[in-house]
Amino acid sequence: MQYGIRTTTSYSFEQAVERVTEELKKEGFGVLTSIDMKETLHKKLGVEIGRYTILGACNPQFANNALKAEQEIGLFLPCNVIVYEDGAGVTVSAFDPSVIDAVIPNDALHTLSRDVQQRLRNVIAAL
Amino acid sequence: MQYGIRTTTSYSFEQAVERVTEELKKEGFGVLTSIDMKETLHKKLGVEIGRYTILGACNPQFANNALKAEQEIGLFLPCNVIVYEDGAGVTVSAFDPSVIDAVIPNDALHTLSRDVQQRLRNVIAAL
Repeated sequence: MQYGIRTTTSYSFEQAVERVTEELKKEGFGVLTSIDMKETLHKKLGVEIGRYTILGACNPQFANNALKAEQEIGLFLPCNVIVYEDGAGVTVSAFDPSVIDAVIPNDALHTLSRDVQQRLRNVIAAL
Repeated sequence: MQYGIRTTTSYSFEQAVERVTEELKKEGFGVLTSIDMKETLHKKLGVEIGRYTILGACNPQFANNALKAEQEIGLFLPCNVIVYEDGAGVTVSAFDPSVIDAVIPNDALHTLSRDVQQRLRNVIAAL
């Protein structure tokens, strides 16, 4: 099944990170964490990969409601948005909340995940 | 489907965070990120919840191999381990990588996720 909502952009890597952070903010998501996988793998293993950053985005209102609906939903939080570069350019991909629906049968959570999905689609469409 | 590998402990909250971090290290996972949901929701929304921390654990060797097998696997990384308290005590729950198998049909990834699942089971069993 589809697990990412993505677009390949003509931005530089830095611009893509900056732009997606701005668009996430417009939809109510702050970026709580940022992991530079290129740097992490270089430092820990000495291997070289293309630039690849994992942003952890969180909309506090949705997170609060999701926790009320499903105690262990934190296992899926924050919502990951990855930015990476390869031969095709710089791609931005957001975790598709429909994955959660496929795994957890919970109607209250489903309503929230559909709303979050639409917001993440707006973010990616705006890039 | 099961999406968490969990145990409820008699540790204090701080002890549980410390102990799971130690056990993750034994299985090759470093903790890259830590999100205090109680503090985040208090600060952003003024709401009060029980203590709830989301740890982002990463085994660099597995992450590197997973990225080779599936470019967008970063949407599922790092591997979340949550520690939370409620009336039942302090629970530690790790993201069950079998979720990834249910979503992404990729044999190379499946082999890795089974190995990671066993390591996370070892972590939880040791608490």
